[in-house]
Amino acid sequence: MAVYTDVSDEDVSKFVAAYDIGDVLSCKGIAEGVENTNFMLTTDLGAYILTLYEKRVDPADLPFFLGLMEHLAKRGIPCPTPVHASDGEALRSLCDRPAAIVTFLPGLWPKRITSDHCREVGEHLARMHMSGSDFDIPRPNSLSVDSWRPLLESSGRIETDGVSAGLYDVLSDELMYLESHWPAGLPSGAIHADLFPDNVFFRDGHLSGMIDFYFACSDAFAYDIGICLNAWCFEPDGSFNITKARRMLATYRIERGFTQEELDALPILARGAALRFLLTRLYDWLNTPEGAYVVPKDPMEYVRKLRFHQSVKSAGEYGLD
Amino acid sequence: MAVYTDVSDEDVSKFVAAYDIGDVLSCKGIAEGVENTNFMLTTDLGAYILTLYEKRVDPADLPFFLGLMEHLAKRGIPCPTPVHASDGEALRSLCDRPAAIVTFLPGLWPKRITSDHCREVGEHLARMHMSGSDFDIPRPNSLSVDSWRPLLESSGRIETDGVSAGLYDVLSDELMYLESHWPAGLPSGAIHADLFPDNVFFRDGHLSGMIDFYFACSDAFAYDIGICLNAWCFEPDGSFNITKARRMLATYRIERGFTQEELDALPILARGAALRFLLTRLYDWLNTPEGAYVVPKDPMEYVRKLRFHQSVKSAGEYGLD
Repeated sequence: MAVYTDVSDEDVSKFVAAYDIGDVLSCKGIAEGVENTNFMLTTDLGAYILTLYEKRVDPADLPFFLGLMEHLAKRGIPCPTPVHASDGEALRSLCDRPAAIVTFLPGLWPKRITSDHCREVGEHLARMHMSGSDFDIPRPNSLSVDSWRPLLESSGRIETDGVSAGLYDVLSDELMYLESHWPAGLPSGAIHADLFPDNVFFRDGHLSGMIDFYFACSDAFAYDIGICLNAWCFEPDGSFNITKARRMLATYRIERGFTQEELDALPILARGAALRFLLTRLYDWLNTPEGAYVVPKDPMEYVRKLRFHQSVKSAGEYGLD
Repeated sequence: MAVYTDVSDEDVSKFVAAYDIGDVLSCKGIAEGVENTNFMLTTDLGAYILTLYEKRVDPADLPFFLGLMEHLAKRGIPCPTPVHASDGEALRSLCDRPAAIVTFLPGLWPKRITSDHCREVGEHLARMHMSGSDFDIPRPNSLSVDSWRPLLESSGRIETDGVSAGLYDVLSDELMYLESHWPAGLPSGAIHADLFPDNVFFRDGHLSGMIDFYFACSDAFAYDIGICLNAWCFEPDGSFNITKARRMLATYRIERGFTQEELDALPILARGAALRFLLTRLYDWLNTPEGAYVVPKDPMEYVRKLRFHQSVKSAGEYGLD
């Protein structure tokens, strides 16, 4: 749910007049993206998304995000394409915030995940990795292993144990393991790093859009797979669905083969991915004021996922032969 | 800001399949309307608004609201038209809530009100009153003078005086006056009763849409004018702008003349309208939890408006000759 900035009708019309996209028909704040303010903008020439970048996004990262989307879209990846204004700029300013207009993608994000969705995600994730491999702006992953201990410490021992008794030590022990075993040197490039179901649109059973590249960064491709295993392959009851994982990894592999190092690293990358979302959820859980409109997500879901990955001995347990 | 109910992709697709409006391209929760959940729905045939009616709306009132919109739209009033499903029904059910699809209206609502906006509002308000005069479903105004004392009492003396010292007695005295002088027998019919700027769209300087008929009811036309005087004709600094009022009333009058009784009653109706919004704002101000996403509007704005109307001796002070 995200409309953090009110934009007046006059501001919108003036802003859009700098583009060659027709006259504004409507501009409605939408409940999409939690970091930024998003509007669905319709003009007499088409539909667009207007985004105002709020405090949580570092303006210095915007050329990476917008550049990556443009790079991928040019190569046929179904992601939003930044629209350039008449002066050539894609990144502009509205209501004292960095702002951009991107193309609108049709489709709905799925609430009930099927293995067909996972098949589509695997294929498109691999294509995205391949297409982004020659994108030359680097952006280190600011939410990777080095950031996790400070994140846990900012949640605090007492508060963390208040969520679940003994949780702080569980996470601290896991962190120690990950810090000393985190793999390096894996095939890397631009990854999405947040490809959850609400960021993926489908139409007629096929993937029609991947959105929200505002956690994208340069990191190991297989870490992106680890994130998707967590995001797409567990059932609401917490159990791992190997059929979903098998289909996701099988279609990924058709587009882009795995190295042996990636296969070996998959369990620890999936553990790391589980811990990363566990830690940010835990922090939000402890720091969202009561009665706030945004309901924080339960971090305990990721404790169960983490435990599963801790038990995995090899990539075969994710359905890979 | 209003997305109270999550609707899954499958639910939306199934719901829309019962209409003859094409296949769903997208469905995005929008920040419009505070009582209900609204989605901007696009199909391959056009754009629509999908509304789920939440607890604050009495389902028994929905045939009135939808019937009125349909009645007015048929007569050329720029308001949303309820779309009938293939079975003929406009009011259906989605996620255990009453739900309807209405046509999408282009335009932006104005943040900075000019007298040109007021001219357009006057004209269209009069046309709406004329067009609704033969709409035959009655709906008593549940937020008229009889409801105001219970509303004040539910806010409470101590809490009300906490907002501004002595406010409770000011409001109670005003209520006593309004209760004993409230006019009866004025020309009546269907009124909008909430025609604030965020419910009115403009395009190229002309009124292109009037939305949110969920406070509409059967009441005196001049009371609707009183509401619009409050909603459109005061400056951000609290001062009354007689030019705006004059233009609004002058264009109204071209479409629908005033009776002498209406002219005489205008000051008290404007006082009542100010008190009505003051009381609901006061209640929301006192009852919205801290940190909630919806920021309650300051009731004191309406104390200043009420004081102005109390000082008005005749309709001439609103710019009417």
